[in-house]
Amino acid sequence: MSSRLSFDQWKSDVLTQVDQGFEQWLPSADRIPTTLHRAMHYAVKSPGKRIRSLIACASGDLFGANIEDTVHCAVAIELIHTYSLVHDDLPCMDNDELRRGKPTVHIAFDEATAMLVGDALQPLAFNILANQQTKLEHEVRLKQVRVLSESIGSIGMVGGQAIDLSQVGMSMTLSQLELMHAKKTGALFLASAELGALCGTGYTDSCEEPLRNYVRQIGFGFQVVDDILDSSSSTETLGKTAAKDIRDNKPTYVTLFGLDRAKEMASEIEENTRNTLCLLPRKGGYLGDIAELVFDRVY
Amino acid sequence: MSSRLSFDQWKSDVLTQVDQGFEQWLPSADRIPTTLHRAMHYAVKSPGKRIRSLIACASGDLFGANIEDTVHCAVAIELIHTYSLVHDDLPCMDNDELRRGKPTVHIAFDEATAMLVGDALQPLAFNILANQQTKLEHEVRLKQVRVLSESIGSIGMVGGQAIDLSQVGMSMTLSQLELMHAKKTGALFLASAELGALCGTGYTDSCEEPLRNYVRQIGFGFQVVDDILDSSSSTETLGKTAAKDIRDNKPTYVTLFGLDRAKEMASEIEENTRNTLCLLPRKGGYLGDIAELVFDRVY
Repeated sequence: MSSRLSFDQWKSDVLTQVDQGFEQWLPSADRIPTTLHRAMHYAVKSPGKRIRSLIACASGDLFGANIEDTVHCAVAIELIHTYSLVHDDLPCMDNDELRRGKPTVHIAFDEATAMLVGDALQPLAFNILANQQTKLEHEVRLKQVRVLSESIGSIGMVGGQAIDLSQVGMSMTLSQLELMHAKKTGALFLASAELGALCGTGYTDSCEEPLRNYVRQIGFGFQVVDDILDSSSSTETLGKTAAKDIRDNKPTYVTLFGLDRAKEMASEIEENTRNTLCLLPRKGGYLGDIAELVFDRVY
Repeated sequence: MSSRLSFDQWKSDVLTQVDQGFEQWLPSADRIPTTLHRAMHYAVKSPGKRIRSLIACASGDLFGANIEDTVHCAVAIELIHTYSLVHDDLPCMDNDELRRGKPTVHIAFDEATAMLVGDALQPLAFNILANQQTKLEHEVRLKQVRVLSESIGSIGMVGGQAIDLSQVGMSMTLSQLELMHAKKTGALFLASAELGALCGTGYTDSCEEPLRNYVRQIGFGFQVVDDILDSSSSTETLGKTAAKDIRDNKPTYVTLFGLDRAKEMASEIEENTRNTLCLLPRKGGYLGDIAELVFDRVY
């Protein structure tokens, strides 16, 4: 369609609006309790790839959603993702001091504040879904609350985190590793796509399975690429501690299969993703560009 | 009304149904990840006063709600309350080893698990509001999500927690102490009453202010009584470490005003609560009995 923006232009627009969404929804940093609010701004505004925002908005775009509606969803999802990183970095979890090239929240502030940042970002995400100005039907918005809440609970994201912790230093089969990542990363990827799609009227039953398959593929690919980069890049390039999973004796696709086979796997997944995209309207629209982004990224 | 149950009978019925609600909504303890799920059951099922459940259900009863609907709300609120206790007890926060007469979650399990328990209970609460079988309108349920999410965020419960942490060892005025408790405890009390009331058709605009006033009073009273008990009871009676706030150099109504004045305050608040109840239908129904429970409790 000639009026459609290039991916780069669209991506830039989306990310600008997501940043504006943060300003809209985060309580002002000078509001009491100020330390907590400053720390929330610090955590959320750290530069990130915002891949989940892009998935939500591309999925919405594909199914005819209003961009304002999908941006609100994207902001909610980024708050959830940020909370999970902040808690993940705490000493009792991964104990990491560097994230997105900056000191982690418990280093820049303190542990208690980092925990409360996560605890406060989570309800703010649900508040956005329930509170945003929109013409979306109440039923749809309630379904979004259901999808998001399911995806990040003990059967979803937090469950993946628990499996991850329980497996440190243990050997894992491919299927165990896949289950962990499907929950830890995949669940929120899936929620991103579904929340965005639910904002559109074109999201019919027949689109559900191809959309989910697409997200599973890029979630899987994202993780394999992550493990490849973790094993072969410097801390400076990554903006987080390199080779940390290996140092922590955590199973990765690289430790399980070796670097060469992991690279082959990434290629295979990329191929599968392309095939899945063909089953979606407009060959997935910007979702196709996002897949390229996932497989081509260098950090 | 002759068909109305005695408070004791009603309370017993409600608490039984809330317990059944836990069984319904918590993922089975043998489901993967099992440690996380066992810890969630451990945390939620510790015996508690369930005061928030009683407020939600009494408020619902007053405004003609279906008991099943209010019980679901009560379960959601108890999950939130439990998550806040589990995180509160962690070493980086209050560092407490005893809760409701049992080892705290990070002692019975470990710190990482305790954090994940809290992180998983929170979305489960929102999932209940969005997922329960009910005839309530979608708009009402979305409003419940809004009320709950606002009450437990950085402007509500978690904000109170942050103020609490920032004030350790510092002197506080009465109004600062009240602000902290209004957020830390009062916000979830208020959400309990409102979630319950929203389940009923009789909750009109004119009832909002008296209901809120009632909740503010018992929230305030609850805290004053808590401080009195903390300063004068044994660890065994309380089921949690006694005199801990004083030991931790935290401001309380007793440290601020002395035990005698704190007891006077409790009487004054009880009197105000009674006056407020007169402004509600049926003089507040079971909410009046709950007020007695708050002011008469010995643990």
